Amino acid sequence: MARYPKPIMRLMEALSYLPGIGPKTAERLAFHIVTMPKYKLDNIIKALQVVGQDIFHCSTCNNLTDVDPCIICQDNSREPQLICVVQDPKDIVALDRLQNFKGKYHVLQGVISPMEGVGPDELGLEDLVDRVQKEGVTELVVATDPTVEGEATAMYLTKLIKPLGVKITRLAYGLPMGGDLEYADEMTLQQAFEGRKEL
Amino acid sequence: MARYPKPIMRLMEALSYLPGIGPKTAERLAFHIVTMPKYKLDNIIKALQVVGQDIFHCSTCNNLTDVDPCIICQDNSREPQLICVVQDPKDIVALDRLQNFKGKYHVLQGVISPMEGVGPDELGLEDLVDRVQKEGVTELVVATDPTVEGEATAMYLTKLIKPLGVKITRLAYGLPMGGDLEYADEMTLQQAFEGRKEL
Repeated sequence: MARYPKPIMRLMEALSYLPGIGPKTAERLAFHIVTMPKYKLDNIIKALQVVGQDIFHCSTCNNLTDVDPCIICQDNSREPQLICVVQDPKDIVALDRLQNFKGKYHVLQGVISPMEGVGPDELGLEDLVDRVQKEGVTELVVATDPTVEGEATAMYLTKLIKPLGVKITRLAYGLPMGGDLEYADEMTLQQAFEGRKEL
Repeated sequence: MARYPKPIMRLMEALSYLPGIGPKTAERLAFHIVTMPKYKLDNIIKALQVVGQDIFHCSTCNNLTDVDPCIICQDNSREPQLICVVQDPKDIVALDRLQNFKGKYHVLQGVISPMEGVGPDELGLEDLVDRVQKEGVTELVVATDPTVEGEATAMYLTKLIKPLGVKITRLAYGLPMGGDLEYADEMTLQQAFEGRKEL
């Protein structure tokens, strides 16, 4: 029975580390890579090496960065007293696309998830508490995901930081724009009802 | 507006070279890679480097290989007079899984495709003709894809090689096993009718 040459098998295995890449996709990618122009392959290798060497967590906000503090923490046009707490560096880019939030960010090291054995102690919250106190933060916008874990984390943060005299807010729940009411789940509909506004 | 650090942007760009990887997937993969354990990232880099260096085309059959001739061409238990012609090295692995084909293979450098400007001259057919003559091939099983291009290539091969006294065969067309007749396309149904067998 024919097998792939060992270097191709090895590449298929390595590609399977990536999320959403099963054996079939790994095979397709590996064959594409093997027949790719050399400069493209070199670009991929170089990009992986650079990312492995030059990307780390911002010492202030824990965002992924190649300078410390990160460009957002360095930006003096942003209000340091207003901090938006997210659970993933990707969320920062999504939120900042809005261009109407002028504060800074803080990235948690995860969310509380008893199922995965992640408790409050693993989220690096001391850093956030330190920062809140040192920079005299007045409002913390909690923008964790609208999931059980994100909710639990928001509750915990409120309990931890509200006593310090800081206003804690949470992003609104409701129907997603452009969505179809008919297909909204019950939880979302209930939240949309509770949060209804007078016109 | 927040942007990703340059090394991450660069990785996202490099990942977009891969088939089926759009901007959103590239973003997801890049973030996964950045937070991946170092040994895994190193494994991926190493695998890419090795594949770039050690994989080439077999000088006999044009299959992708890390030894020359490839392991299939080296295998003396296979009949050298029976050659299956495929258009992609991946097809060899698929066909050889059957374990009932005991001949050897030949990989074309593509298929005839006027739309993409690929004519018969670009398929490296001289190598195949040479091989057929030198090894006294008696049967050539044409296993190009069941597409217009694959068909055109099969026709051309027949015209080119049949005059050398070689039997040319083509894989059968028909309904795929486990499929649903109701959803078969007209072309396939027609082929299934034409190729019907007495029971």
